[in-house]
Amino acid sequence: MSRRIRRTAYTDRVEQHGVSGYSVVNHMLLPKAYATSVEEDYWHLREHVQIWDVGCQRQVQIIGPDAAKLVQLMTPRDLRAIPDGKALYIPVIDENAGMLNDPVLLKLHGDKFWLSVADSDVLLFAKGIAFGSQLNVTVEEPDVFPLAIQGPKAETLMAELFGDAIREVPYFGFGTFEILGTQQVIARSGYSKQGGFEVYLEGGHLGSDLWDMILESGRSLEIRPGCPNLIERIEGGLMSYGNEFTRANNPLECGFKSYCHLDDDIEYIGRNALIKISADGPGCHIMGVKFGGNAISGVTIPLAVFAQDGSEIGEVTSGIWSPRLSCNVGLSMIARGYWDVGTSVIVKDAEGAYRDGVVSQLPF
Amino acid sequence: MSRRIRRTAYTDRVEQHGVSGYSVVNHMLLPKAYATSVEEDYWHLREHVQIWDVGCQRQVQIIGPDAAKLVQLMTPRDLRAIPDGKALYIPVIDENAGMLNDPVLLKLHGDKFWLSVADSDVLLFAKGIAFGSQLNVTVEEPDVFPLAIQGPKAETLMAELFGDAIREVPYFGFGTFEILGTQQVIARSGYSKQGGFEVYLEGGHLGSDLWDMILESGRSLEIRPGCPNLIERIEGGLMSYGNEFTRANNPLECGFKSYCHLDDDIEYIGRNALIKISADGPGCHIMGVKFGGNAISGVTIPLAVFAQDGSEIGEVTSGIWSPRLSCNVGLSMIARGYWDVGTSVIVKDAEGAYRDGVVSQLPF
Repeated sequence: MSRRIRRTAYTDRVEQHGVSGYSVVNHMLLPKAYATSVEEDYWHLREHVQIWDVGCQRQVQIIGPDAAKLVQLMTPRDLRAIPDGKALYIPVIDENAGMLNDPVLLKLHGDKFWLSVADSDVLLFAKGIAFGSQLNVTVEEPDVFPLAIQGPKAETLMAELFGDAIREVPYFGFGTFEILGTQQVIARSGYSKQGGFEVYLEGGHLGSDLWDMILESGRSLEIRPGCPNLIERIEGGLMSYGNEFTRANNPLECGFKSYCHLDDDIEYIGRNALIKISADGPGCHIMGVKFGGNAISGVTIPLAVFAQDGSEIGEVTSGIWSPRLSCNVGLSMIARGYWDVGTSVIVKDAEGAYRDGVVSQLPF
Repeated sequence: MSRRIRRTAYTDRVEQHGVSGYSVVNHMLLPKAYATSVEEDYWHLREHVQIWDVGCQRQVQIIGPDAAKLVQLMTPRDLRAIPDGKALYIPVIDENAGMLNDPVLLKLHGDKFWLSVADSDVLLFAKGIAFGSQLNVTVEEPDVFPLAIQGPKAETLMAELFGDAIREVPYFGFGTFEILGTQQVIARSGYSKQGGFEVYLEGGHLGSDLWDMILESGRSLEIRPGCPNLIERIEGGLMSYGNEFTRANNPLECGFKSYCHLDDDIEYIGRNALIKISADGPGCHIMGVKFGGNAISGVTIPLAVFAQDGSEIGEVTSGIWSPRLSCNVGLSMIARGYWDVGTSVIVKDAEGAYRDGVVSQLPF
């Protein structure tokens, strides 16, 4: 631990609750486990409500007359008709159409945007473009620490705290609510399929108070500190930048075709490369793979996936035992020609043994 | 552990040698400890030779007719007279003159550069500038994994392996040497003050063989796997991006005045901001702080530093007990007016107790 691996606004509380492991995202701590098992947390998340320190989802704040222009340059998704108060999942790509990030974009108003980023320094990309293209913007990392409230009881909890108005916030919409005497953005979003909200707390010094307030209020709902759950994430087909895809992948491979505007009426980085890839068709596509054998507890080194003819056709990049489906489930880029649902495949496990599998839809 | 936190070309070997902890730099594993203590490793490093997996020092490769122009845009250091085959420590700053990174730049030839980066995605910064400024370059992360050989016996070891020509490589120079049938860059450099080399191995598949070759050859010299040593680093005044300075600091605060060309005959990002800061003078400066009391084993949360008049004047961002100096030593940004060597200060330790200290030169 060092200052370089930054603490969030909630790290003090997370430590008090006995966090037992961290990962690092955006040079910042992401709690990965508390006292309970991944499977126990999975069932709890599906039934109750959890509070997650996702402060590592750093915001890249872009403000100024050219803010909309800069954000559009960074993504193939057509942003022209986006109203204020809307959140949007956007691929960010480079000149080769390689994925640089997959943030959630929040359009706060016409010339103010936040990109809530996965694990890469989109801030530096934005600053580089802004300089080179001489755009009239400021690009900074504001003092904002997202806190996620996830699970089926999340809405009940949030309505108790912030009133029934929060029930009206649509999925990937957000509103402004009073928290601890301040006005704060709350979005209906989060890195699970169980429903919930993310508070974009501006003002890190309020972190512990916000955490305490939510935990206290959620006691009757059996709230627990948690974190993105590997079983739930994979079952839900939620991808992770750096795991399921990297700069070596383009958005068409990642299933983001509907976010790729290929006409030349908007300008963005990587458009020509993306048009060419689209014409040829992507060489692989993200799919699910179900496979048998003993329960695996995760994937550290990707597991090779083979076709019945012995050719290597992909690798399982994230995988785990699904207690609900009673098999192992994995996310995998599968080569063209093999990605039809139901295709029989073979997965080579961490011990080198071969397991029978089948290509599946996402979510599982 | 997941694919997102990438393994290096040496991780297999590092695991075989019983690595007991990792940090994460540039989305990649950096070994932090083996079986021996930091102090034992410190004495070993000062006397013998160590092999370090610093594959996380990722290279940003910039190639093309505009490569020199792009690299110059990224740093206030005047690069006009740099010959091929020279390595150079350069601050990389943003439009506010805030530090984005402090890489070692390798000029391979006139239109091919590597930036061996600290912990931020300089690749994205370079790609953004290249797009915006429409520069004729390609910017990629090559398949290069630095391996450091550090300690007073490093030259003996390297000469045994690669011949006496390696003795002629000057500090921050590099040459090309045959390794395992390939031509590879070896520089006289590294993140210690004990002397040594870094092999910029191109071709990650050669990692284990290179590791084995060096370890076998170094056996008679008492070689050991190691890692950047916190005691040695702090005593030597070697700063770490994200620890001693961040984007909130400018290069004049970091002691990089001689790397800041302020005339308008070269163009780089942040020049106007830097000229203004230079005119006003920096508000703080990196200094050493020696302080008493029990031995500390490191700094997780920076320790506040106060003047005798009670005003807060800085914080110790990295600190540890120096067995050689028999006191605690720390690196600290000290406010203007208080940074004279010999100034008495007070350090608030992790338990909230106050300890007497004194501002010191770097290296200690």
